[in-house]
Amino acid sequence: MSSTAFGLLIEKINEIYALRSGLSLMGWDQETYMPTRGGEGRAQAMAALTQVITDKYTHELVGKLLDECNPQDLNAREQALVREFKRDRDLYIRLPNDLSAKIARVTSEAQNVWFQAKKANDAKLFLPTLQKIIELMREKAKALGGEKCMYDTLLDIYEPGCTTKELDPLLTELGKFSHEILEINTSNKKTSQQELLGEKVPSFPLDKQKIFSLQILADMGFNLEAGRLDVSAHPFTDGLHPCDVRLTTRFLENEPLAGLFGTLHEGGHGLYEQGFESSHYLSPMAEAVSLGIHESQSRIWENQVGRSPAFWEYAFPLWCQLFPEQMLGITLEQWLKYVNRVACSYIRVEADEVTYNLHIVLRYKMEKALIEGDLQVADVPPVWDKLAQELLNLEPKEASFGFLQDIHWSAGLIGYFPTYALGSCYAAQLFEAALKAHPGLEREFSAGHFTTFREWLRMNIHSQGREHLPASLMLRATGMKPNVDAFKRHLRKRYTVN
Amino acid sequence: MSSTAFGLLIEKINEIYALRSGLSLMGWDQETYMPTRGGEGRAQAMAALTQVITDKYTHELVGKLLDECNPQDLNAREQALVREFKRDRDLYIRLPNDLSAKIARVTSEAQNVWFQAKKANDAKLFLPTLQKIIELMREKAKALGGEKCMYDTLLDIYEPGCTTKELDPLLTELGKFSHEILEINTSNKKTSQQELLGEKVPSFPLDKQKIFSLQILADMGFNLEAGRLDVSAHPFTDGLHPCDVRLTTRFLENEPLAGLFGTLHEGGHGLYEQGFESSHYLSPMAEAVSLGIHESQSRIWENQVGRSPAFWEYAFPLWCQLFPEQMLGITLEQWLKYVNRVACSYIRVEADEVTYNLHIVLRYKMEKALIEGDLQVADVPPVWDKLAQELLNLEPKEASFGFLQDIHWSAGLIGYFPTYALGSCYAAQLFEAALKAHPGLEREFSAGHFTTFREWLRMNIHSQGREHLPASLMLRATGMKPNVDAFKRHLRKRYTVN
Repeated sequence: MSSTAFGLLIEKINEIYALRSGLSLMGWDQETYMPTRGGEGRAQAMAALTQVITDKYTHELVGKLLDECNPQDLNAREQALVREFKRDRDLYIRLPNDLSAKIARVTSEAQNVWFQAKKANDAKLFLPTLQKIIELMREKAKALGGEKCMYDTLLDIYEPGCTTKELDPLLTELGKFSHEILEINTSNKKTSQQELLGEKVPSFPLDKQKIFSLQILADMGFNLEAGRLDVSAHPFTDGLHPCDVRLTTRFLENEPLAGLFGTLHEGGHGLYEQGFESSHYLSPMAEAVSLGIHESQSRIWENQVGRSPAFWEYAFPLWCQLFPEQMLGITLEQWLKYVNRVACSYIRVEADEVTYNLHIVLRYKMEKALIEGDLQVADVPPVWDKLAQELLNLEPKEASFGFLQDIHWSAGLIGYFPTYALGSCYAAQLFEAALKAHPGLEREFSAGHFTTFREWLRMNIHSQGREHLPASLMLRATGMKPNVDAFKRHLRKRYTVN
Repeated sequence: MSSTAFGLLIEKINEIYALRSGLSLMGWDQETYMPTRGGEGRAQAMAALTQVITDKYTHELVGKLLDECNPQDLNAREQALVREFKRDRDLYIRLPNDLSAKIARVTSEAQNVWFQAKKANDAKLFLPTLQKIIELMREKAKALGGEKCMYDTLLDIYEPGCTTKELDPLLTELGKFSHEILEINTSNKKTSQQELLGEKVPSFPLDKQKIFSLQILADMGFNLEAGRLDVSAHPFTDGLHPCDVRLTTRFLENEPLAGLFGTLHEGGHGLYEQGFESSHYLSPMAEAVSLGIHESQSRIWENQVGRSPAFWEYAFPLWCQLFPEQMLGITLEQWLKYVNRVACSYIRVEADEVTYNLHIVLRYKMEKALIEGDLQVADVPPVWDKLAQELLNLEPKEASFGFLQDIHWSAGLIGYFPTYALGSCYAAQLFEAALKAHPGLEREFSAGHFTTFREWLRMNIHSQGREHLPASLMLRATGMKPNVDAFKRHLRKRYTVN
């Protein structure tokens, strides 16, 4: 009986997701509280649990239960659950165990090599390792996708259904447009902190920054009884379970926006992780559908909300209350200019909303060419410099400001970068749709009320889990397929008017 | 070939211990950083991983490898490793899966019932649950031990090789002796904080208490790069891995010794967890041999070291430096009297070194009688009151000051309490042996030097892992079988002289 098969399958799936929750905790702890010498034991524990999870996914009985599930006995959500679980399972099955183990080993070692190379500013130190990784990723793409375009196969892991056919024109247009906005901004605007806030850069004590961040999270509606905020070297979100969502940020005394925008960004991810339907906990229906959609949730809170004048009408008085001396003589108008300054920078994660896109275009071009064999690893440094010059007007600088700045390639995360740009496009599209549904949204923001907005996101995105693939989810939520137009309108409005 | 069988077996064992390290992390996190609503998901994750670990222990192939290991090809440590792993495995095999699951479910629910009953001070609320637990523990004892004395079977889980035959006289003597010391102390000594430190009880800021605790840990030789100190409601130690040992304590503003003695106690446990041979990591040879031996390591640092005049010669100036105002006018002599005051109290975990033993005698008598059928659950409250009167001169009080005070029974930990008293006996015996080997030890303490002592413990206890059972380990380390004499000498010297 297929209903029994489905019931048994759900038990197996719940078990896998429960184990994955343990693995998530190990990852979170590694970045937050693990003592320095705990790394080796942790790596062994994570490898052992990863193997257990792989064995559970690929177990014969699970395959049998999948075969026995009769779609006619299942509702749409259940059918999607089976489809998505099968999709994940197929990746485990298609990837040979020894290739998977080799990737785990090489990328684990590579992250250390990358770290050393970055520290030493030495491109050559990392190139042989990058060579190995590119080869392994090509092997992986072939194993998973057969004759399919290799880069598409890798991309599909992170953004199901998305292909270079749609990405190429989208990113070309986004790059071109961002470059135009950049030109306007650099030619006639002040950009440095000193120019905007005065000669003396104020210092903002970390404990008060944390109080502010927690207040903002609470007002956003992030449930702090079902999650927490910690500090780590690089901000991230780890959804162990929808009732246990861990955010991290980093607070810097002299860059007060780093911690806050880290919080808003991760808080957006966190609301997604907390927003799944409880009836589907521990299954793919209580899981983000793609990295691009996940990123749309972080960016919409960081950029559409957090950089808006409406948000600061509410937040500025709170901020000034916490930092009266530091903010003395700084007006809301000045502050907004500081928040929304545009300037080229070498480091992607420090980039503003406009130039960020150009960083993504650069990485996309390069990693696609590397995977498709159109770029040799040895040529990565000069090609990087050339593209950085073309796209971002940046003079060549040390490798740690160039291709060594990101951890992604060393971790084997290829096909991952474009989802950041997709996230920005989705965010703008979603925000326009939310505004259309609730024209008074920004008035609510300026009073510190985010419930309408959060619930709109919850209904249209969070609670959907993985029922619809990203393109279809966007169509349902906004009436439009994914496109760059809304994001262009957003950038034009925020960065060219006045 | 048996050497190959042993090699393969070690791989399996390492894998199991790596997974258990993940389970430990989940337990630690639950008590430290897990958000309140994370409990249900965590319980599911821990149950799933526990099942995986059970499956790995009981796997047929593991049994086959055990059979194929030829002891003649193994050295003594390897033989012990196989013996101890087999011992653990046998417990998993003998305990029927459904009984194990039932115990997990009932004790999980019971802890909540216990918590509610304790809060409401309502004995009757917990008695039906206790009834179920006692029945399950009897069932467990029968499954594990067959015809053996049921309480012995449960005791053996926590203290391998120990039986009521040795425990009965030991605890009777310890109880009688502690009672005598108590009589001497209550009749002619001041005991309250006010009497000893002055009318106004000073307040000791928590952050400074933590600084002091971390300093003491570092001086003890606890490696803070391979471990950490956090705060939890009840202090505990969780050795995820010898390179990742997590201690917790609790700091109270008006009871400055709670945090410090929590730290010393857990620090002692922590040194044991950090002190195993690295060549045996992830195996029973890098694991504590028993709870009693574990407790000896915590108590020796808490009591033999931490309550000694020598220790305070070193620690008192540091303490006064951190709390100059609070300690104004208090002499080292006064402080030592405060540290070593003896007085009956209702709560075991707050008891001093002398009366603590009487709490254990009480619990031992009761739980043994419950398991052996000589005491009915309905009679627990009146019998508790009667024993508390006899042993500790305590008038009957609410149930939360009586049998509801401890979590153990609700968690199904029966046969566990006596290991606390064994720990005290072992500690005294070990300390005498260490002093005999190094007569200058206490002079070293007073200068803040603990290396000789720690290394003696490491050589004689920590690095031995589970090679020798507790009684044999004690014989090797001290030349004597476990006995109560050294502890009596320790108590007599500290609590009756002057």
